[in-house]
Amino acid sequence: AGELAGAPGQALLDAWVVGFEIEAALGAAMNPRHYTQGWHCTSTLGTLGAAAAAARLLGLDRDAIARCLAVAASEASGVKENFGTDAKPLHAGLAARNGIVAALLAKSGLTASARALDGPQGYLKAMASERQSLGDALEVLGRRWEVLETGVTIKLYPSCAGTHPALDAILDLRRQHGFTAADVEAIAIGVDALTPTILIYDRPATGLEAKFSMQYCAAAAVVMGRVGLDTFEPALVNDARIGGLLPRIAMTVDATLGSDAPALTQARVTVRLRDGRMLGAYADGARGYPARPATEQEVTTKFRACAGRVLDADRADAAMLMLRSLDHLAEMRRLTDCLSPEAQR
Amino acid sequence: AGELAGAPGQALLDAWVVGFEIEAALGAAMNPRHYTQGWHCTSTLGTLGAAAAAARLLGLDRDAIARCLAVAASEASGVKENFGTDAKPLHAGLAARNGIVAALLAKSGLTASARALDGPQGYLKAMASERQSLGDALEVLGRRWEVLETGVTIKLYPSCAGTHPALDAILDLRRQHGFTAADVEAIAIGVDALTPTILIYDRPATGLEAKFSMQYCAAAAVVMGRVGLDTFEPALVNDARIGGLLPRIAMTVDATLGSDAPALTQARVTVRLRDGRMLGAYADGARGYPARPATEQEVTTKFRACAGRVLDADRADAAMLMLRSLDHLAEMRRLTDCLSPEAQR
Repeated sequence: AGELAGAPGQALLDAWVVGFEIEAALGAAMNPRHYTQGWHCTSTLGTLGAAAAAARLLGLDRDAIARCLAVAASEASGVKENFGTDAKPLHAGLAARNGIVAALLAKSGLTASARALDGPQGYLKAMASERQSLGDALEVLGRRWEVLETGVTIKLYPSCAGTHPALDAILDLRRQHGFTAADVEAIAIGVDALTPTILIYDRPATGLEAKFSMQYCAAAAVVMGRVGLDTFEPALVNDARIGGLLPRIAMTVDATLGSDAPALTQARVTVRLRDGRMLGAYADGARGYPARPATEQEVTTKFRACAGRVLDADRADAAMLMLRSLDHLAEMRRLTDCLSPEAQR
Repeated sequence: AGELAGAPGQALLDAWVVGFEIEAALGAAMNPRHYTQGWHCTSTLGTLGAAAAAARLLGLDRDAIARCLAVAASEASGVKENFGTDAKPLHAGLAARNGIVAALLAKSGLTASARALDGPQGYLKAMASERQSLGDALEVLGRRWEVLETGVTIKLYPSCAGTHPALDAILDLRRQHGFTAADVEAIAIGVDALTPTILIYDRPATGLEAKFSMQYCAAAAVVMGRVGLDTFEPALVNDARIGGLLPRIAMTVDATLGSDAPALTQARVTVRLRDGRMLGAYADGARGYPARPATEQEVTTKFRACAGRVLDADRADAAMLMLRSLDHLAEMRRLTDCLSPEAQR
């Protein structure tokens, strides 16, 4: 939408905040029931957030914005049963596309219901929303900024968020004590009660399953000393060093965790080494969470690893520079051109 | 999908039946709860039907067909609150696009969950399905053909199906007795209890509202002697002859209707003329329903009226000939080329 509008970087930042706040408002009204019912919020709420952001970038007026969100209500989908497959990341792309399509249709004059969100047969009702009205959630818009109060989490490992606290702890212990896989006799990882319902693959067969396997992620962290995109490539999923370590790693529910913190954010790691040493660590949150923001170096490393899959190093670094000074970028298109692998060839 | 596959007409008919049966099977398992919850089946079940049809046309194997339907489960949407607006017909187009996108993604190898439909966080659960398993519904596939047993309805009036029985009766009476709007003192239309919850516009302000107005449709039928696409153009919605007749037409619930037939399929019409005559008619179903199939002439008239909005008459007639002998068409693309207004220019 920023490209279509010929917008500057600052307009994108502005639209991003709009989308963020709309999604947060919907989430506050609709969850947990909406999520529990099987809906993947990234896609279902994300479609509305993307639509709001696209409407902002395309400069729609009040009436068109309302129609844009109403069309988005008829586009939003994405079921959690598709987690652990390619369809899960696809959800994010569908949300972005749906938002732009809704904004373009609304801009071209397409009509939609003023009650599409909160009417008796609308989005909230159909989508199993916790509350059937947006009243309270919308009232805080523009007065309380969710993006400031809650902050933003940057995931530094490309695996399920439920693995992150334990991975932080294991990597810290490994750095401090310099052990290798051969030194490890056993690793015990205590987690809250929700974690085992999401990290369901004890012996993952594919990289996508491995992202939802505490044992695999922990074993890879010990063997490689880090967890990155390549950790989930087939070569490593079939690596004998990691496979050999898996039976020595156990994940168990620790009843002391999770009662005083959001789900998936705490872990207790105990490493027993062959030489008899016992190493312990407790993680509350992870690096990249709002309370422990990712460093510039961590973000750079992550960006290079991701962008390097489709762009050469120079182009990736140029894109990063533009992103770091997005508020000064005259034309969004300069960034999207830079990010496009087609343009590179 | 037929174009992409370079398929002949017969393959399209075959795929259409596949899509029809899949949608019927889903409908049997999921309704009425799914529909009552606010979902528009044309779009929600239609996405799965279109995906199945596209998978068939693109020749996907068993595994890819399963992934195609699983992706479709994460694309399907469309809320009934958008009825009476442009977003409602858009739902049908979104379903078709979603089906083709799902088939192309599955063909290119995208993975999705084998339990995306009936898993605990899948399509049936999220979509408020009446039943949480497809077992029974799928067992009949290939043994009982819904398309043969139930048949297909062709809507001969471009208004809500709930208006059709009454419109048939009024137009028949008008033909038999030759009255005009000026002769009419009052018209009483008895309907089942569901009809007034759908035909909610007594005095419609737009053409889209007029499609959901019994009074408007009946008045237009009396004034024009027919009901067609132009009946819902702004010029007629503001026509004084129709507007003048509206206060003389009443729709009321007739408790004798609807108990022995599907909803919206019965009507009792009484026309009181200025000269004292009382004309009565009872409609059970309408022309175009399976029990009273549309004649070739009626279908031709409808096709010309619709196609004439974007194609010239010669091109529309050529397309109709191809459609009437679709099983002999060597290349689907010949038909879609013919239907494309761009190719015409």
